[in-house]
Amino acid sequence: MNLARVTGTVVATLSVDGVDRPTYLIVDPCDTGGRPSGKKQLVALDTVGAGFDEIVLISQGSSARQTQASDKKAVDAVVVGIVDMVDEASQVTYRK
Amino acid sequence: MNLARVTGTVVATLSVDGVDRPTYLIVDPCDTGGRPSGKKQLVALDTVGAGFDEIVLISQGSSARQTQASDKKAVDAVVVGIVDMVDEASQVTYRK
Amino acid sequence: MNLARVTGTVVATLSVDGVDRPTYLIVDPCDTGGRPSGKKQLVALDTVGAGFDEIVLISQGSSARQTQASDKKAVDAVVVGIVDMVDEASQVTYRK
Amino acid sequence: MNLARVTGTVVATLSVDGVDRPTYLIVDPCDTGGRPSGKKQLVALDTVGAGFDEIVLISQGSSARQTQASDKKAVDAVVVGIVDMVDEASQVTYRK
Amino acid sequence: MNLARVTGTVVATLSVDGVDRPTYLIVDPCDTGGRPSGKKQLVALDTVGAGFDEIVLISQGSSARQTQASDKKAVDAVVVGIVDMVDEASQVTYRK
Repeated sequence: MNLARVTGTVVATLSVDGVDRPTYLIVDPCDTGGRPSGKKQLVALDTVGAGFDEIVLISQGSSARQTQASDKKAVDAVVVGIVDMVDEASQVTYRK
Repeated sequence: MNLARVTGTVVATLSVDGVDRPTYLIVDPCDTGGRPSGKKQLVALDTVGAGFDEIVLISQGSSARQTQASDKKAVDAVVVGIVDMVDEASQVTYRK
Repeated sequence: MNLARVTGTVVATLSVDGVDRPTYLIVDPCDTGGRPSGKKQLVALDTVGAGFDEIVLISQGSSARQTQASDKKAVDAVVVGIVDMVDEASQVTYRK
Repeated sequence: MNLARVTGTVVATLSVDGVDRPTYLIVDPCDTGGRPSGKKQLVALDTVGAGFDEIVLISQGSSARQTQASDKKAVDAVVVGIVDMVDEASQVTYRK
Repeated sequence: MNLARVTGTVVATLSVDGVDRPTYLIVDPCDTGGRPSGKKQLVALDTVGAGFDEIVLISQGSSARQTQASDKKAVDAVVVGIVDMVDEASQVTYRK
């Protein structure tokens, strides 16, 4: 999975992914301190009600279809959790 | 998923992907403003009637097979939606 | 999918991929004009009789197993079509 | 698979990955000597009780769901083993 | 698939990948002449008895599970063949 920050939303009225009223979030992969990690921005289906600027956990590939909302849908990235805390070398690097 | 701009088409008469009369689009991954994102160009199966220069949403990998047109086909990228609007930090960055 | 140019072949007599007499092609990902795209070279199973220097369409990942020749085989890239024509911005950029 | 060093943990109380009390580790891909390999940091589900600074083996993609703990879960990276020794060109490059 | 050179081995006694007495090889992706290709080193399950310094064919992702040894195992890269010969533009670039 990857840590990522929620930075925006995408509206796509005509879609064939099979998700009912999807919320697509623009997410920027980030490091343990919430800074951009250098991985490219992507679009992930929200399943947890993530808000702007929150740090979330992203699952990609076929694993992104293993939630109730994304099951058998044409979705390759999903927000699977809202991050509360990250620590590195026993130092808290991010707290919600 | 990724945002991408439709820039061209590919014709491949001899193919074994199993798709009946496929429309293959050249798509250039783009950022929230429609500018090239730095990710490499790819070829995606069109399932929504996307037109030249439109911004679309691309699903890749096994998730690309989760549409009616691509089910069980040898297709690893599909256009799943036409993007109407993108906003970042509550600012509209793209509108169709 | 990706556009790629066929540049060579690989012979591997001892193999466990389950494909009977496979033809493995060296393919160089290319752009819409047939020039190297900057993506790395890979090895793809030929299923369409692609010849040296031809531009082909490559499917990767689990989608590469969705052809009759590659079904349930340990193959992660397959040639799914021979490209006849590519156009970009309504200009033909490649013709076989 | 990839070699990676455990450098931290992620706490995400609200999650939909379906894993009961998951331990998410921050892992930094490393080379055969334990030095950063240049691949980007990721978050992997721990299934073996890996500790801080240990070198582990990471499986990604759908293969990450092939453990008892991650079966059918929205997890795309998992620690599948704790590395005891690595050798390169018959030289031991890492020993636990 | 990718060409890669076998450069080392990994021992991981505590593992949950489900493979009985696995042999994990360090493999360095290489070009058609056996030189490093610029892709990052990875760890692949050996299924063919590949030896040090041999050039092998690697399958990744879910396709890596399509061998008898890796079926339903948490393995995302497997050696599927030992390369005997590679040619590029009708010139032999590698011979075992």
